[in-house]
Amino acid sequence: MIEQLKKEVFRANVELARHGLVTLTWGNVSGIDRSSRLVAIKPSGVDYQSMTASDMVVVDPDGKVVEGKLRPSSDTPTHLELYRAFPSIGGVVHTHSLYASMFAQACREIPCLGTTHADHFNGPVPVTRFLTPEEVDAGYESWTGKIIVERFSDLNSTVTPGVLVAGHAPFTWGGNPADAVENSLILERIAQMALGSIQLNPDIPVLPMHIQQKHYQRKHGPDAYYGQKKP
Amino acid sequence: MIEQLKKEVFRANVELARHGLVTLTWGNVSGIDRSSRLVAIKPSGVDYQSMTASDMVVVDPDGKVVEGKLRPSSDTPTHLELYRAFPSIGGVVHTHSLYASMFAQACREIPCLGTTHADHFNGPVPVTRFLTPEEVDAGYESWTGKIIVERFSDLNSTVTPGVLVAGHAPFTWGGNPADAVENSLILERIAQMALGSIQLNPDIPVLPMHIQQKHYQRKHGPDAYYGQKKP
Amino acid sequence: MIEQLKKEVFRANVELARHGLVTLTWGNVSGIDRSSRLVAIKPSGVDYQSMTASDMVVVDPDGKVVEGKLRPSSDTPTHLELYRAFPSIGGVVHTHSLYASMFAQACREIPCLGTTHADHFNGPVPVTRFLTPEEVDAGYESWTGKIIVERFSDLNSTVTPGVLVAGHAPFTWGGNPADAVENSLILERIAQMALGSIQLNPDIPVLPMHIQQKHYQRKHGPDAYYGQKKP
Amino acid sequence: MIEQLKKEVFRANVELARHGLVTLTWGNVSGIDRSSRLVAIKPSGVDYQSMTASDMVVVDPDGKVVEGKLRPSSDTPTHLELYRAFPSIGGVVHTHSLYASMFAQACREIPCLGTTHADHFNGPVPVTRFLTPEEVDAGYESWTGKIIVERFSDLNSTVTPGVLVAGHAPFTWGGNPADAVENSLILERIAQMALGSIQLNPDIPVLPMHIQQKHYQRKHGPDAYYGQKKP
Repeated sequence: MIEQLKKEVFRANVELARHGLVTLTWGNVSGIDRSSRLVAIKPSGVDYQSMTASDMVVVDPDGKVVEGKLRPSSDTPTHLELYRAFPSIGGVVHTHSLYASMFAQACREIPCLGTTHADHFNGPVPVTRFLTPEEVDAGYESWTGKIIVERFSDLNSTVTPGVLVAGHAPFTWGGNPADAVENSLILERIAQMALGSIQLNPDIPVLPMHIQQKHYQRKHGPDAYYGQKKP
Repeated sequence: MIEQLKKEVFRANVELARHGLVTLTWGNVSGIDRSSRLVAIKPSGVDYQSMTASDMVVVDPDGKVVEGKLRPSSDTPTHLELYRAFPSIGGVVHTHSLYASMFAQACREIPCLGTTHADHFNGPVPVTRFLTPEEVDAGYESWTGKIIVERFSDLNSTVTPGVLVAGHAPFTWGGNPADAVENSLILERIAQMALGSIQLNPDIPVLPMHIQQKHYQRKHGPDAYYGQKKP
Repeated sequence: MIEQLKKEVFRANVELARHGLVTLTWGNVSGIDRSSRLVAIKPSGVDYQSMTASDMVVVDPDGKVVEGKLRPSSDTPTHLELYRAFPSIGGVVHTHSLYASMFAQACREIPCLGTTHADHFNGPVPVTRFLTPEEVDAGYESWTGKIIVERFSDLNSTVTPGVLVAGHAPFTWGGNPADAVENSLILERIAQMALGSIQLNPDIPVLPMHIQQKHYQRKHGPDAYYGQKKP
Repeated sequence: MIEQLKKEVFRANVELARHGLVTLTWGNVSGIDRSSRLVAIKPSGVDYQSMTASDMVVVDPDGKVVEGKLRPSSDTPTHLELYRAFPSIGGVVHTHSLYASMFAQACREIPCLGTTHADHFNGPVPVTRFLTPEEVDAGYESWTGKIIVERFSDLNSTVTPGVLVAGHAPFTWGGNPADAVENSLILERIAQMALGSIQLNPDIPVLPMHIQQKHYQRKHGPDAYYGQKKP
């Protein structure tokens, strides 16, 4: 089971780099095995070119390494907070992808300006608040997870599968590591589109709600008809 | 005949991805055989890498699948509306290409600012209105086609081979699937150029009409002299 | 001699596409043999992938085809005007490269904002005026050349190896076809840099003249010391 | 030793081009052997494709060539000034990378707007002043180095491993040539992100200092825990 998860997480990390979402080692993907509560994650600061599936690090819910010779990603505590708070997710991705990070740095949520966005994120992509000095001292990475969860106190992590951490960069998630990577790519594209649309019309209104809902539902609702029937 | 059309449509879909106009599965090309009135189109939500010509789905003018094991693109009803209203076209393309979608999301037509535009689109690239809630309920995809056709009530689909659907993304068309793909690429490039020109000069005037006409005519008019003689 | 020139022109056309300066067939390179006054140029509307050296078309100073089965580029009369007016040039390039065309469409010259520019273009990259309806009728492509030459009445084509045609796109030139292609790439890069710098500072001043001159002279002046000694 | 350094410098130059930071020959990397005080540097104006390790030029602290058949980069005196003033650095890189050069041309420092920046540069990326006419005459390239050093009179070259030369382009450095190249890539990415963030919010505040410090320290401080333990 864990071998399978490590392969999945490895492949998802490779895919993340292949999509051009990663500069140097600025990105990491993890996946969770909900039965054993073990998480496999990319090792910290390791090059995407030289990495293999066996380099993936396995940690328990407290972040203790249970398998692997390398240190896990320094962002592991953030991933663990997300798995704890969002029980339906199976994979988490963190990148510093360019356009999503532009919005994160500007502390601006990404409004839903079109159907590309509405197809995948129900409502705007939210931004967290900044961490306080006390929170940074108390555990920077776990508190990064906590302020994401705080931001989602009135949001649904299933229909909004990502967030911008203020002054930092995006986190996305999904049912498994591959889906989380796909959401990371989608977020980057809608960020780039939104930047251009805002430049063309600084007072741009959001997409009318009846169209937002239609697009989200045709892909993700109970009567979804986009794509092929699930086997 | 249909085998030939399926190959053409398949190749045009591959070409669309090769031009960088497609993220994930956000794009589809169709082609029509005017004698049998059958349309071949990309299957819905299928990956461009694994797709083959035999995966293309053939539908009749009402959208009923007459050949193929997969579901057709969810945008099929939009394509069918366009084939019905524009009798001279042989191929239709839908993408969420980045720059054209920026204009679509900003509900701004692309003005003709230069000869790159004038060479291929006669006049601005128009934007549709938004669908009403009633239209969305009555059939989102076919109504998307209907508001495109409505927008062309006083436009000529032959000299303006594309449109921006408000809050959504572009549709283009052409004499055959390959030409429709080419128009999709051209639209993306003129959108990118226009964005930059507008940023350099927010009050930019359109290209003088005598130059617009000259460029369009030298490529597409009765005395066109661009390119090689048609054999 | 002409065989050699055709090869050179062919290779320069390939290089132009390799640099990403060409979409579809929007670009052409020519070269001149000053002794015979013959010009080799890309055929009109032919795909860069399928083109060979033997497809290059050879024309005399009046534009009459003296060798080759295909039609020459429709922009041939523009190239010929430039060869006539600028006796020191050996190659001409026309593209619709994205960033240079943004400035051309905005009818804005590219000011010299930095050393990248100053290294290669002495002073701003100028913009022509628009053609009048009469000039368009009298011969669009040759008049495009004439207004470029008119714009250079008080400029030096050797130290300013390129121009933006208003509402259209750039032309560049050089001592031979390869140099003209290099100038086309340089122009595209300085256009992109200038757009960003102008966005960061709309009232940006030009680079101080003593630095402009220093950079141009260290590369192109009588005591140039950039690069290797010419053999 | 020098053979090893030449290989390192060669590989770093190749890497610089591979990262897309170089157009034509606009970039150079050098490395220093602190024991012999010899510097290996890219030859001037030589193509990245045809270059080999044996083409690297070795100069002494006065810039005299002690090994190699080609001329060293015309920017060699700038590199030498930096090695003289910053005793802890082992590699220097100069590029005209697009986004960093946009800021250099606009004479705007890059403010620390996010953690991507804070992870690698402690505080803003500074801009130099312009050279005076007298300084240009007295030795353009060595004075370029001197005004960088002047700018760092109250800055720490270890925690701020790069600079923008006003109206010109960036220089970066590091413990060895490969690190200097990495800092060049990082600078380009944070410049691009900053441009977008500034466009989204022209009055954007800098990242709160407690987060800036946390990010810099977790990667570079005495208790750094990012990446793997050094062997």
